[in-house]
Amino acid sequence: MMTTLETLSTNKAFGGVQGVYRHDSGETGTAMTFAVFVPDHDPGETLPVLWYLSGLTCTHANVMEKGEYRRACADERIIFVAPDTSPRGPAMDGQPVPDDADGAYDFGLGAGFYVDATVEPFARNYRMRSYIETELPAIVGAHFPADLAAQSITGHSMGGHGALTVALRNPNRFKSVSAFSPIVAPSQVPWGVKALGGYLGTNDFETWAQYDACALIAAGARLPNLLVDQGDADQFLDEQLKTDLLREACATAGMKAMIRMQPGYDHSYYFISTFMDEHVRWHAARLKS
Amino acid sequence: MMTTLETLSTNKAFGGVQGVYRHDSGETGTAMTFAVFVPDHDPGETLPVLWYLSGLTCTHANVMEKGEYRRACADERIIFVAPDTSPRGPAMDGQPVPDDADGAYDFGLGAGFYVDATVEPFARNYRMRSYIETELPAIVGAHFPADLAAQSITGHSMGGHGALTVALRNPNRFKSVSAFSPIVAPSQVPWGVKALGGYLGTNDFETWAQYDACALIAAGARLPNLLVDQGDADQFLDEQLKTDLLREACATAGMKAMIRMQPGYDHSYYFISTFMDEHVRWHAARLKS
Repeated sequence: MMTTLETLSTNKAFGGVQGVYRHDSGETGTAMTFAVFVPDHDPGETLPVLWYLSGLTCTHANVMEKGEYRRACADERIIFVAPDTSPRGPAMDGQPVPDDADGAYDFGLGAGFYVDATVEPFARNYRMRSYIETELPAIVGAHFPADLAAQSITGHSMGGHGALTVALRNPNRFKSVSAFSPIVAPSQVPWGVKALGGYLGTNDFETWAQYDACALIAAGARLPNLLVDQGDADQFLDEQLKTDLLREACATAGMKAMIRMQPGYDHSYYFISTFMDEHVRWHAARLKS
Repeated sequence: MMTTLETLSTNKAFGGVQGVYRHDSGETGTAMTFAVFVPDHDPGETLPVLWYLSGLTCTHANVMEKGEYRRACADERIIFVAPDTSPRGPAMDGQPVPDDADGAYDFGLGAGFYVDATVEPFARNYRMRSYIETELPAIVGAHFPADLAAQSITGHSMGGHGALTVALRNPNRFKSVSAFSPIVAPSQVPWGVKALGGYLGTNDFETWAQYDACALIAAGARLPNLLVDQGDADQFLDEQLKTDLLREACATAGMKAMIRMQPGYDHSYYFISTFMDEHVRWHAARLKS
């Protein structure tokens, strides 16, 4: 069955089309909004796809407005897809989608952590893993000139965690994986402990391990092409991101990875936009090889 | 006297520093906020300055977030300055700054039109011409490594009008002038008639002519280097922007100008960001010649 896609906006940019779309998601039981940039291309041509998973509090719009990816994607003829970070708004059955209840920015709305929740009241709607891994790729393949045999994935912070863990669980799907300031070991940091505990249960460490990049690597998962950029002036580095844990996990596993500390850069889109062009072109080289 | 500058934020980006600053303005009688990007540079080096004047409803933040100018400015070592579009907030004497009173987006707050108002209640605070032409350049020169002998100016929509008219009144100050989707003849279009009438009086056409690019050209003002990009899918083109009036004014005056219609582009920052890199590099060539 072809999902109906509602077009919320389209704007010509860098010769292509930046669009925003909405559809009813069977996974989350809500309307979901996402952004897609499709470069100029020839009739019948299909293009590689680069996924971008966003961080806490973000929607599809943050990277669309501030990410500065369109020039490189247009040059390299790569489709760029930016999903939302959680279900939002009323569910399709009319029930409200559970929020975090205390207004926290790091749990509930805008903070889905790319998991399939198992704990009530989140289990029905917070199915971002299945949404990102299964439902949305099918929609992108059906509605855009996408070559799903050529996919790569990137993300920022919570979305860097998402990119790493989605790829580590699906290593043959992605030609390359990168991340900006990712949460690399959520089981070991406050943001992650709160989210994994809240969505998956405070004691279900086996399930947590499916959503922890360092744990997945320790359990044997491997990525052939991994690039991480992390600002050394990032206020979340020491407590929440702990890039060194990924470096150590890769070293212990004998997995090659390019993990770079960028001096003076913080956690913001000023950092992301600075290195976005390089990430897109690094992915492009691997998507086309 | 050295104006005190309050630093609201700084973020490292593209090797330089994107900052946001606030100061008490003698011209507007209010606190004014502006953004400056200073590329990486050598100790003691001063850099050319590119001014960017924003459009209706904008602050310094819109272009800072969506304009995609930092890569080219960093490459070309050009300082990029983005002022606000009107006085805002309480005046320094405690009086409220007059708004448009009816919530309109095209008059009052966010819509200063780069004029020195002569009509009450706007005359005290709406002094954006003097702020942009005199006060802010002195502040930029005093607080940043700016070479004020090398300035260029650009802007969008109302800010394109601002860039054109500031430059036409000060032709020796700027090495080059460009605009994205500018209002070229405010005396002849609804936005302009409302603003010039409201700030300058409904019958003071002599003063209006100082704030109308086409009228200034007709009266003899000339610019040696002028570049305009205009999307042909811009919803404001036919009623408010009327690019052809600028083309005709230049032709009548025998003034060379590069005025380009860009097929399929609209009035948004998706358009601006697409051509920003080219504008920065076009200015750079003239700033350094």
